[in-house]
Amino acid sequence: MDFDNILGFIAAAITTAAFIPQTYRSITTRDLSGISLGMYTAFTFGVFLWIIYGIRIGSGPILVANIITFGLSATILYLKIEHLRNSDQKYH
Amino acid sequence: MDFDNILGFIAAAITTAAFIPQTYRSITTRDLSGISLGMYTAFTFGVFLWIIYGIRIGSGPILVANIITFGLSATILYLKIEHLRNSDQKYH
Repeated sequence: MDFDNILGFIAAAITTAAFIPQTYRSITTRDLSGISLGMYTAFTFGVFLWIIYGIRIGSGPILVANIITFGLSATILYLKIEHLRNSDQKYH
Repeated sequence: MDFDNILGFIAAAITTAAFIPQTYRSITTRDLSGISLGMYTAFTFGVFLWIIYGIRIGSGPILVANIITFGLSATILYLKIEHLRNSDQKYH
């Protein structure tokens, strides 16, 4: 594997793993008021499209990274929706 | 451009644009307590690596999407650090 491929894998691993501390923080603190519903709705959907793209072009790294990201992003989205249902906060 | 390329561009556009509502929310509300410092530190650095990767492999879409994402992610990171400096909250 050449330098560029390694760089790409490291970049993918970091931007995927970055969602772990956010998911952990959201689960443990249930402090979701500053989290954007719009971001996690769009992001979760966008990552779902990346999964389809990864399947279609047969890219293992894209598929694996996005399946993990999907799980993390969907968890934050779920906690945000639960938070909104428990409050009368404006939806945005 | 074939279907797969279009799908990839749409996925990239959505996962990039998703950070706009989060940045807007963080700027307007300054409600950063639920935002993870670890996520935005790692994510901003990872996106920086994606920019270098995009330059090296000569991919315009990767470069453009990640420059935009970098600006949005770095803004949220800046607001989070500013928030932490204004509080005695535990760093995590």
